[in-house]
Amino acid sequence: MIKVGIVGGTGYTGVELLRLLVQHPQVHLHTITSRTEAGMAVADMFPNLRGHTELCFSEPDTAVLSECDLVFFATPNGVAMKSVPELLQAGVRVIDLAADFRLKNETEWEQWYGMPHACPQLLEQAVYGLPELNRSDIVNARLIANPGCYPTSVQLGFAPLLRHGLVDTDRLIADCKSGVSGAGRKASVAHLLGECSESFKAYSVAGHRHLPEITQGLRSLTDNTVSLTFVPHLTPMLRGIHASLYAYCEDLSVDLQAIYAEYFASEVFVDVMPAGSHPETRSVRGSNTCRIAVHRPQQGNMVVILSIIDNLTKGAAGQAVQNMNIMFGFDEAAGLNQVALLP
Amino acid sequence: MIKVGIVGGTGYTGVELLRLLVQHPQVHLHTITSRTEAGMAVADMFPNLRGHTELCFSEPDTAVLSECDLVFFATPNGVAMKSVPELLQAGVRVIDLAADFRLKNETEWEQWYGMPHACPQLLEQAVYGLPELNRSDIVNARLIANPGCYPTSVQLGFAPLLRHGLVDTDRLIADCKSGVSGAGRKASVAHLLGECSESFKAYSVAGHRHLPEITQGLRSLTDNTVSLTFVPHLTPMLRGIHASLYAYCEDLSVDLQAIYAEYFASEVFVDVMPAGSHPETRSVRGSNTCRIAVHRPQQGNMVVILSIIDNLTKGAAGQAVQNMNIMFGFDEAAGLNQVALLP
Amino acid sequence: MIKVGIVGGTGYTGVELLRLLVQHPQVHLHTITSRTEAGMAVADMFPNLRGHTELCFSEPDTAVLSECDLVFFATPNGVAMKSVPELLQAGVRVIDLAADFRLKNETEWEQWYGMPHACPQLLEQAVYGLPELNRSDIVNARLIANPGCYPTSVQLGFAPLLRHGLVDTDRLIADCKSGVSGAGRKASVAHLLGECSESFKAYSVAGHRHLPEITQGLRSLTDNTVSLTFVPHLTPMLRGIHASLYAYCEDLSVDLQAIYAEYFASEVFVDVMPAGSHPETRSVRGSNTCRIAVHRPQQGNMVVILSIIDNLTKGAAGQAVQNMNIMFGFDEAAGLNQVALLP
Amino acid sequence: MIKVGIVGGTGYTGVELLRLLVQHPQVHLHTITSRTEAGMAVADMFPNLRGHTELCFSEPDTAVLSECDLVFFATPNGVAMKSVPELLQAGVRVIDLAADFRLKNETEWEQWYGMPHACPQLLEQAVYGLPELNRSDIVNARLIANPGCYPTSVQLGFAPLLRHGLVDTDRLIADCKSGVSGAGRKASVAHLLGECSESFKAYSVAGHRHLPEITQGLRSLTDNTVSLTFVPHLTPMLRGIHASLYAYCEDLSVDLQAIYAEYFASEVFVDVMPAGSHPETRSVRGSNTCRIAVHRPQQGNMVVILSIIDNLTKGAAGQAVQNMNIMFGFDEAAGLNQVALLP
Repeated sequence: MIKVGIVGGTGYTGVELLRLLVQHPQVHLHTITSRTEAGMAVADMFPNLRGHTELCFSEPDTAVLSECDLVFFATPNGVAMKSVPELLQAGVRVIDLAADFRLKNETEWEQWYGMPHACPQLLEQAVYGLPELNRSDIVNARLIANPGCYPTSVQLGFAPLLRHGLVDTDRLIADCKSGVSGAGRKASVAHLLGECSESFKAYSVAGHRHLPEITQGLRSLTDNTVSLTFVPHLTPMLRGIHASLYAYCEDLSVDLQAIYAEYFASEVFVDVMPAGSHPETRSVRGSNTCRIAVHRPQQGNMVVILSIIDNLTKGAAGQAVQNMNIMFGFDEAAGLNQVALLP
Repeated sequence: MIKVGIVGGTGYTGVELLRLLVQHPQVHLHTITSRTEAGMAVADMFPNLRGHTELCFSEPDTAVLSECDLVFFATPNGVAMKSVPELLQAGVRVIDLAADFRLKNETEWEQWYGMPHACPQLLEQAVYGLPELNRSDIVNARLIANPGCYPTSVQLGFAPLLRHGLVDTDRLIADCKSGVSGAGRKASVAHLLGECSESFKAYSVAGHRHLPEITQGLRSLTDNTVSLTFVPHLTPMLRGIHASLYAYCEDLSVDLQAIYAEYFASEVFVDVMPAGSHPETRSVRGSNTCRIAVHRPQQGNMVVILSIIDNLTKGAAGQAVQNMNIMFGFDEAAGLNQVALLP
Repeated sequence: MIKVGIVGGTGYTGVELLRLLVQHPQVHLHTITSRTEAGMAVADMFPNLRGHTELCFSEPDTAVLSECDLVFFATPNGVAMKSVPELLQAGVRVIDLAADFRLKNETEWEQWYGMPHACPQLLEQAVYGLPELNRSDIVNARLIANPGCYPTSVQLGFAPLLRHGLVDTDRLIADCKSGVSGAGRKASVAHLLGECSESFKAYSVAGHRHLPEITQGLRSLTDNTVSLTFVPHLTPMLRGIHASLYAYCEDLSVDLQAIYAEYFASEVFVDVMPAGSHPETRSVRGSNTCRIAVHRPQQGNMVVILSIIDNLTKGAAGQAVQNMNIMFGFDEAAGLNQVALLP
Repeated sequence: MIKVGIVGGTGYTGVELLRLLVQHPQVHLHTITSRTEAGMAVADMFPNLRGHTELCFSEPDTAVLSECDLVFFATPNGVAMKSVPELLQAGVRVIDLAADFRLKNETEWEQWYGMPHACPQLLEQAVYGLPELNRSDIVNARLIANPGCYPTSVQLGFAPLLRHGLVDTDRLIADCKSGVSGAGRKASVAHLLGECSESFKAYSVAGHRHLPEITQGLRSLTDNTVSLTFVPHLTPMLRGIHASLYAYCEDLSVDLQAIYAEYFASEVFVDVMPAGSHPETRSVRGSNTCRIAVHRPQQGNMVVILSIIDNLTKGAAGQAVQNMNIMFGFDEAAGLNQVALLP
């Protein structure tokens, strides 16, 4: 049983984290902070938690957070970096669900996130928490940069191809579709039901913050140069990411299905589906699974990988819990065995 | 640990039952039958179950079903009644999620369901499985008629008013709204996304099969005559029932909030919300909870009760598991502690 | 050809008004104002209008507005009343799509809208623009209070019953369901897709601003006292209102279907459907029609009226155009002959 | 004024065609046939047409159809080819909204559509009705093969690039997303709201019938070999196609925006949006417009074209009316000036 704190818990990542942690067998929720909602019962804001927790939001207080074994930051970008050094100092381990520690290169980070980094000295020691690619580093990590939602689906989808040097890495394409919860729970016109229901659009085609994160990850999987075109799209649904990945493979004889099956054989949260499958995002709704299908249309050179996750679970809070489980020596699937809700 | 069988498991009630049972700590799923899908892996039909069960659908076989302690029927109306007598004979206990045993009066049943009843002699002994109103009878029941979705939300909502004799029972109104999963998983034009998305309509205003079921239940709560107007509506969403109940209360001084709170004080699956609340169906998505709010607009005579459930959980499979728990002496909430998925 | 101005055109009522007016055969759009978006092309904000108008939003300017024959206010409550006196003075006719002139009683208005009224002297002369009940007064009106969306559907639905004195007016119930566009196009958390998709809830049960408006209207239809319970619900769809109306009718022999058919016989925008119908909101999506179905479940005393409209068309902008047509002697259906978009 | 017949009008393409034709200034609807619904009023099946047409479905009757100037086939694949020869003989012009005449190569057609072709001799004379690429041939056509929905969006999107020889045509990618109405109005489990709402998936990745149609069209635009990877996806919404197109362009200096603007300068139904735009499908809901945006992320070699249409309008019925207008010398936009419904 570990003592856990959450900083910022009023967004969708926060409520998802709460959903998972209130039922985790080895977690005691010690504190949850929110500057704006201090004093409010968590279950008053999120009625799905009525009967599951008595916790109230409180003002952020370093002393209280320092009593925790682990603190999750479910805050906007740029918040965690201001408090993390002090918490690490106090011996607390940290998982940041935002982007503060995801890029290794300080200049690149500042350019994409439009602000100076408050503790660039921690970028190197932060461990990128994608367990399937990085598990051994996570075990002893003090500070985890929990991956973005798109980066999780894209990196898991491309990994076997790049590790085996099978494709032209100069023209990779990731055409990704996300549910609207990925945009967060902030007052905005653009994400009103009236604006994004019954419509579909691409966004940030010129450049999305997840692009450098994905590229950094893909580069670590290959010695070749990597050039990726990444186009995110907003889909009129609550949860789910569907990444459609395209890569050119000269070799027509390689058994891609077998390669994927073997690559992820021991992974509890990656499900390589039978050949010919078309995974649907609802099959992972609320679960921590990433399902992958491998296609080679008309037996040609273009490989099409379909990779799906729930953006709030494997793409955020679920993966954070998976990282916690690894860090504290729990069963990696502890508290993460939910069956996806279908329909 | 009990041995459980499911007859018919290819509909939405079936997959919801599977979701709950594959993780129930005291259940071993012994067999699941489907005439049309025999031989198919359950997880091939419902990919959300991949990794959670290896079970395949099999032909219905009385010998195999007779090895079970309990058999659930998740079949269309009129199927269970043909097999139940034999199973009861063999000492198997039965929970029927369809309507075969919900009405006590054979003539009334045959009139509403348009077919002769195959075992009217069992109608009397069948126990109507609404635990909050009927728990003591469920304990020793051999045959449970699991309530319909609308009847669950309406009866729980009206119960305190009728038990306390507070309202005019001659002009009760239940204006109910259901998600589309309530219509089942059968090929049909009417329930295509193309037909019922982005639209709202009433249906069966002239008379819905749940009307006699609700009326029968309400009559058992009062000595007065009961006349109910029940209007169901189809709502463009997957899951959820919202019952808006109207009843005229002469007495302006009675503290309805207190009466409801006390009436359901010991119920784990009924949540009486604070005065002034507007429960939203998503707050019970995938959970077995019924949330109720009590209103008296402008402090007038018309009482408005808002009662919400997930039609597939508390309105079907979850309630069936709750009944099972009671019948076999398990913790009533065993396997039913899921937090609703929000968003 | 008349010169028309729009004040405030950046909300859903505004864009709907634009959709109708840019194709109206007798309207020249002279100006559209928006304090916040002055200078922006209308079609940049609403790309559906690309190719249909070159107009840009401009700063509100009384001189320019005074050049118009008619000015529509598609502004928040409390805005129109500040400018209307001056425009009327200048000989401009005005249709206010907000609530500033809907209530005759100043005190009641101030109580429900929470502010002092800027020109209470105009309340009496303002004409409530529900053409089917009020056509003759609209012809010569200088100032039209365009009805609210719920009030339109409820008053049209109840009108024949009340005019003919057929029902108990002391226990009227209007259980109404609206699409989310009714909440407007303002940054807010509550109406994010992430908050209101896949969920259903009642709101403002204690008292909604449309209650006094409806009650005022119903009172004008009968000499009896009127008591109405009005419960609005938020439905996960873009457009549409479905009003389910309940009234107790002692007389079991009256032919309600015939009464409704006759009452609306000459109305081009009210469609009394065949007996037994269940109108669906999509059948009026984008059209100015109100469809009504009359039910008497189990041939009992409770009458159930189903009344549907598109909240943005007949419930707002379409009705405003209908009022304009009447005021200026155009064909009442000019510019309003759109077929509803189905699916 | 021409006499028009519709064969098969009970699907989504049919009701959309009806919506457009009942208000077309130069069309008299002479007959609409449906074997299954003969005798039923069209407005009873599609209540949005109540008040707009008195037409009833009738049994298909060649004599009656031969009285028409033009017959539209809105039938499943394989139906039109059985009746078209006789109608052409009778001097009737024909627009087939299905796929019977879309491919020039009989063998290829039979392979993709799985049946022998009933009149292969007509394949050559049939004109592929994509006006923006093929207008001059449409003018005198007797038989039009109305393009598929995906092919319309993809060909319009790629056309300028291929005509100008700007990209590598060996690795073209079309990642396309369609609303569910594209699957038609047939009883099916797969397209129930319960199955495809709140979920996203690819389908037919191994090969979709629109692939040979698109490839045939793209080949006519270039002398180079063409290899296309086409992946369609099902999106949880009613209407709309969003094609995200990827092509590699060696030349970094070419002004793509200018090329697109010029290429479509005189087209009334193609809207090249300003640089940097992200068209949303709702901006063409119910309208015949194709909106295109041109991107070159990070000023690199990969060109990304976003091309959107309403699958039922420009992707089917609207384009058919556009073809009719061209064939009969009407204004090309006659009856097609609807503003998209937003929201």
